[in-house]
Amino acid sequence: MSEFVSFPLALAAEQFAKLPGIGIKTAQRLAYYVLNQPENEVRQFAENIIKARESVKLCSCCQNFTEREICEICSDEERDKSIICVVESPKDVSAFERAGGYEGLYHVLHGLLSPMDGITAEDLKIKELLSRLTDVKEVIMATNPTVEGEATAMYIGRLIKPMGIKVTRLAYGLPAGSALEFADDVTLVKALENRNEL
Amino acid sequence: MSEFVSFPLALAAEQFAKLPGIGIKTAQRLAYYVLNQPENEVRQFAENIIKARESVKLCSCCQNFTEREICEICSDEERDKSIICVVESPKDVSAFERAGGYEGLYHVLHGLLSPMDGITAEDLKIKELLSRLTDVKEVIMATNPTVEGEATAMYIGRLIKPMGIKVTRLAYGLPAGSALEFADDVTLVKALENRNEL
Repeated sequence: MSEFVSFPLALAAEQFAKLPGIGIKTAQRLAYYVLNQPENEVRQFAENIIKARESVKLCSCCQNFTEREICEICSDEERDKSIICVVESPKDVSAFERAGGYEGLYHVLHGLLSPMDGITAEDLKIKELLSRLTDVKEVIMATNPTVEGEATAMYIGRLIKPMGIKVTRLAYGLPAGSALEFADDVTLVKALENRNEL
Repeated sequence: MSEFVSFPLALAAEQFAKLPGIGIKTAQRLAYYVLNQPENEVRQFAENIIKARESVKLCSCCQNFTEREICEICSDEERDKSIICVVESPKDVSAFERAGGYEGLYHVLHGLLSPMDGITAEDLKIKELLSRLTDVKEVIMATNPTVEGEATAMYIGRLIKPMGIKVTRLAYGLPAGSALEFADDVTLVKALENRNEL
């Protein structure tokens, strides 16, 4: 007896299974949910996704997602244009903005150097970063504390330092609210090295 | 400083967050992925979901999802029309068909009795089940082994038995490949009660 799944269920499940981190079981659950929703709501759902994709552009300055030529942050007159925080992805910009406290600008690389995956400097928005460094005093390398994040920070740091611009890196340390006993060794050693006077 | 998320990212994330079991973090991850995909692929993805929803109908016999008037299983001449396996949802039909070995027909209830959630017999496809019982010899109640599944099986069983039709229930027992020590008490007691001669 062959595997039987009704055509609409299979078609919808197939779509969801294309998304990252969505396995076949979850895809079927989502498909089942969608097929049970009112038709106009499903249409709205799908059309909004198309709309989001169609309207998305990269800010010609910071390369973040935006629907304008220059994004909201880059065109905000009140922000400090002498500091640029370099991040891997638009999600990271959201994270910093949610946390608050940072008044400078951003630059989104759209990836990290990863020779194993064939991602080289040309695949990242590094040229775009270098071309906007006039009048910039500090570049904060805010890539993830992973091997790729470190390598990318080092690589870009070496390009920028000779231009006489201060390059800094996010601090390593214990995450707020965590327990010392669960911290990994690298984090603990870094937290100790970077200890501050009380 | 207010939370900043670019409009397209927020719009796409909002759509994904509507899906069951998709939290805001996952929704953002999916939105980010979608915005990075080629526009025609995203369009295809969204249009296929609309297409699946538009083409879905309920089989006028078994109530399973189909794009035809009578589904593939109900119109299969080789299947045993004297046995009906009653399940909660179309996913369960897929599960049985995947497992193989069942040659009868199905009936999809599209839910389980749940007075707490206001789901009564009228909300399920019970009328449709009762109206197709001519020439049926056995009805297998294959709802989940949960409180709602049991209650629904009992309720429907009581409606059908007086019609002189055999009503059976899926066996409780140890799942294949599991370890005895991890089985819950109810399962263990049932497995013992329903023991078979070797």
